[in-house]
Formats: sequence, structure tokens, C-alpha cells
Amino acid sequence: VKKATLKQIAEKLDISVSTVSRALSNKEGVGNSLKKEIIREAKKIGYVFKIDEKNENSANIFGVIVPNIQNPFFLNFLKGIESVLFHRNYRFIMCNTDEDVNKEKIYLKWLQENKVLGIIAAPAFARDGSNNLSIYREIRKNIPIVLYDREFHECDEFDSVCTDNKTAICEAVEYLYKMGHRKIGILLSKRGNFCIEERLNGFLLTTKKLRMEVDENWIVDDLYPSFDITGKFDKFFSSTEKPTAVISTTHSISCNFLKNIRNKGLDVPKDISLIGYTDVIESDIFDPPLTTIKQPILEIGHIAATTTLARIDDQYYEPSKVVLKTQLVERNSVKKINI
Amino acid sequence: VKKATLKQIAEKLDISVSTVSRALSNKEGVGNSLKKEIIREAKKIGYVFKIDEKNENSANIFGVIVPNIQNPFFLNFLKGIESVLFHRNYRFIMCNTDEDVNKEKIYLKWLQENKVLGIIAAPAFARDGSNNLSIYREIRKNIPIVLYDREFHECDEFDSVCTDNKTAICEAVEYLYKMGHRKIGILLSKRGNFCIEERLNGFLLTTKKLRMEVDENWIVDDLYPSFDITGKFDKFFSSTEKPTAVISTTHSISCNFLKNIRNKGLDVPKDISLIGYTDVIESDIFDPPLTTIKQPILEIGHIAATTTLARIDDQYYEPSKVVLKTQLVERNSVKKINI
Repeated sequence: VKKATLKQIAEKLDISVSTVSRALSNKEGVGNSLKKEIIREAKKIGYVFKIDEKNENSANIFGVIVPNIQNPFFLNFLKGIESVLFHRNYRFIMCNTDEDVNKEKIYLKWLQENKVLGIIAAPAFARDGSNNLSIYREIRKNIPIVLYDREFHECDEFDSVCTDNKTAICEAVEYLYKMGHRKIGILLSKRGNFCIEERLNGFLLTTKKLRMEVDENWIVDDLYPSFDITGKFDKFFSSTEKPTAVISTTHSISCNFLKNIRNKGLDVPKDISLIGYTDVIESDIFDPPLTTIKQPILEIGHIAATTTLARIDDQYYEPSKVVLKTQLVERNSVKKINI
Repeated sequence: VKKATLKQIAEKLDISVSTVSRALSNKEGVGNSLKKEIIREAKKIGYVFKIDEKNENSANIFGVIVPNIQNPFFLNFLKGIESVLFHRNYRFIMCNTDEDVNKEKIYLKWLQENKVLGIIAAPAFARDGSNNLSIYREIRKNIPIVLYDREFHECDEFDSVCTDNKTAICEAVEYLYKMGHRKIGILLSKRGNFCIEERLNGFLLTTKKLRMEVDENWIVDDLYPSFDITGKFDKFFSSTEKPTAVISTTHSISCNFLKNIRNKGLDVPKDISLIGYTDVIESDIFDPPLTTIKQPILEIGHIAATTTLARIDDQYYEPSKVVLKTQLVERNSVKKINI
């Protein structure tokens, strides 16, 4: 059936069967415009696209690139991935990069050499924003890749499932404004990371739009890894003018901030209000119950897995870009200020 | 070198090289006492034991059987596993069984067929205690298996890394006794599970030793899965005589109990005291800060991984049984009662 189909396309475009085959199996030697024409024609007659056959050696294994396995985000995310893959008899290798571009490189190389069926990845970023984009691009020639949580700023060729980070922070700033806050800070983890830069952008845009002044001391960055950040908070609290509220950009920063506040004998929200990022089962029983930005984490896992499966079936679809909404969950960590 | 070594052993024991080879590669047809003699002799001359050569096809992949990926225990556990395996260029497949014996069977079969290098597993148990022991035993003939967190009651042939569940609960009961409590309850997840049965045993033994009466309504079981347990707590609180303190046996039960208490307008520890199981970064910022039984989770991961590597190098060691101590972390969820 397949050969007949290739011949059909070849005859229609008046080219050789081997050229059609080269184009459809993503090999070198076919010009881009001819390749596009071949793909268009192939889709028209219902040709079923398959990733390179050699991938059938990989025993139905996927690679999942996780930037920090100790982040509770991954409890629900991995459950979402696993529940989709398990029922289709697929398995996955868990690759934990610790947000380290070099460690990620080793994992990517392994996944490539071992010809996994697909890769589901939240890429690592160095502090200066550098990353493994070129390696991802190289691998993508033979192995479908779907990005989740983060993308590469420089390109839009990858399938991706992200949340709307900018709007998430925008809504948080507007909520604080509505509650009477005019001096707001933000607690950032590792700069360079796609999400964190988007969240900072959302913060800067919205505070500017609402004509709120932002002291540079109120933007605390590089709170990663989280085990040595106490000194950074000290600096924050020793600044002469303090914000009345802060937005945290990761769950672990929220936890550390709450502990630090208590050790200083201060109180949330009496002395300073806090909005956390990532809603977890525990947020509700914190002291105080934490107002948070909730991400649909299980859905991110589901969609990332199903998108990868769809991409294996057809590598020539337009990139699928899914952006999910976050939700501000109001609890008791933000004080109302009368203006 | 290897053949020479086999010949050496054969000559020493006056048997054929093929018998030695069969015995050392774990094949049928060599009697147990002769096999032991061959192994003893092999060790004496420094023969390096290797698992069946066909395993070399598995591209250095391990299988990690996780009973419930949504339990925060696995954030640190997987980190512990990954950090040991990564540096030796090993990868692992994450298998999530949802505490389902049938789902585990499918994963085990896949790991066996795909000849992984080793399996690190917390086995699933049905409510009646039934499990996949026979499959584990079958697989172990060719693939090293290390159990963590749980063992099989029926046997002691597997390497294992567990915590001392009985002593953990014993210390919690004694602490509550010291704080003046004489009526203590326990919140159990799924019965049949090795850990949960051990924890219940510790509870029954220690309350008996201290001559405390235990009403059967104070032992609440089957709190798994945790999303539909509110009704069970209702029953607990509607009983005529209530305990003054409870011990929870999982993190998710602790969270649900605290939420439920608050919805009823009750307070921990004023109305009832609580000791949680598993210490997490959040325990400290709960309302109230939760007194917990802390497990050395990262270490369990490290030891499970290194034990598996050691077992690959030598399948004839005596089973390695590591039992780690837990630690009672005292915070503010237990009230002192004056007697």
C-alpha cells in the first residue's frame, strides 16, 4: 500500500519515487519547496505519516525531561503523563536535569542514541538564557519532541503545552492593586528560564500600566537552589522602604519565605502579604492559608503525552501550541489595605 | 580469562566446565548443594559474578516501581535514585502502579521482557494482602531486584531498604502517653500493605503495653484513595467516645484530616492532637506546625540504588536487609494534657 502511494505522489508531481520517499522520510537531498509540495500532495491523498522506521527498535520508550524532580509540580505532572502512556503500553525514562544545561545534554544524547519514540521536555536554561536548542533541533529530525511548561524564546517550531505565565502574574498584580496594595515585590527563582522571564515581564508590564513604582530592591532574583536563599531575604527586609505585598514565582520560594518571615517574628498577611505560585494540596492548610496561582498540572501532563502521540502519527502537522489559563485561588495571605 | 576461571573451578571440584557454567549462570540442572560448592569455590578464586549476559541488551535501563507517584515521598526518593544512577550512566523507567496488583503485573512483565538491568520496587498489595510475590521470584532468577519501603511478609530472600515502621509508631504512642493522652486513635490507608500492617502492629503492641484501651472506632482504615475519605472521618467524629489524639499513617491522610477538622469548626491541637507521617518541607508551615514521623527518604533512594548496583556485581551475596530509623519531629500539633 505504501509503495503504491509513493508512486501515486511521484506520478502526480512528475518526480521519482525515491525523491518522494526521501522527502517523506526526512532525509537530505530534497529542496524545501519541493518537499512542501510533496507533503501537501501526500496529505491530500491520505498518506499516513510515520516517523523513521528505525525507531521501532526502541521498545516503546519515551524520554521525559524534568528540570527539578524535587518540585511538587511533578507529582501531578508525571501522573498525567503516566496515565496516558500506560494504557497504550508505552513506558518512559525519567531524566532529571537539576536545571543544568550540561546534565541535560547528557540525557538528550542518550535518548537520541537509544532511539526513544518521543521526548517530552521542559528544557533547562542557564542564567544567561543559553540552552540546548541546537541539540533539540538536531534530535527533532528523527524523534518527535513536545515541550511543556517552557518554550525556547528564539523559535516556534516545537509543539508545546504551557500556561500563560504573563497573564497569571498580571492577574495577581491587579488583585493586589484592588486590595489596596501600591508597593509590590516579586520573588524570582533562576533568571534565564523562559517561565521566570515571562513572569517578570508580566510583573513589569502590569505595575507600569497601573502606574505603581517598583524599587529595584523589591525584585529579588536568583532564589535557586532554594536551600541557600535566607541571605537574600535578609537583604529584602533590610531595605529602607519595604513593599506591602510580594508575589512568589515557585512553590519552594513560598515555603521558604513563610519560614523566614516567622523566624523574623513577622506575620503574613499582617506585616506583608504573599501570593504563591503553584497550588498544592497543602496550600489550604498553611498558616495562613495561601492565596495562590493555580496551574492545571494534571492537564499539562495529559496534553503533553497526547500531543507527543499525535506527533508520532504525523510529523508534518503545523506545530501545536497549547496555552492553558491559570487561576487565582483566593485564601487568607493577602491583607486588604484601606487607601 | 573467564573460560580459564571456569576450568579452574571445574578441575578443583572434578566436574565438567559446562556444569560450572550452568551453575554460575543460574541455569537448571545443577543440584543445590553442588551449586553452593561451585559458588563457594568461585568466590575463593575471585571470580567476578555477572548477571546473565543477555541483559547487556537493555541499554543500561533500570525499572523503578512506584506505588503512588502523587505521594510527595517520591520527590526525594526519585532524586536519591536518580543521583546515584545518573553518574554511572544508568537510566530508569518510572512505573506507577497506583497500588494496583494487576497494573503492577503489566509493568513487571514489560520489565522482564525488555530485560532491564535491575528493578527497584515498592510492591503493591491488595486489601487482602495478596501480591505479585511469585512474579517477583520468577523475575529475580535473571534480574536483580531490590525492595524499598516494603517487603513481602512471607519471605526474606530479597534485598530491601525499609524504615522501622513498628518502632516509629511505638515512639509516637509513647510520646502521646508522656503528653498525658490515654485515648489514642490511628488513621490507616490501605490495609494489606506491608507498612500499614507494621504500623498497626506497632500501635496495638504499644497501647497494650501501656495498658491503654483502644475503642475499635478509633482505628479508621481504608483511607485510600484519599479523595473520598471525608465520610470516614464523619463516622470517627460521630462516635460517642472520642480519642484525644490520633496518629496518621500517610502524608495525604494528615492533610485531609486537618482540612476536615477545620470544616467541622474544630481545632488541632485544642480539640484533638495529631501526629503526621512523613516530614515534608511544608509540615513546618502548617496550621498548626505538624509534629511528624520523619523518614530518611533521600537515603532510602541512595541505598536502594547502590544495593541494586552491588547486586548486579554479585548475585550470590546474602540478602542485604537495611532498616533505617525514623525520627519524631516535635512541633505544635500535640496538646499537653494534665492528668
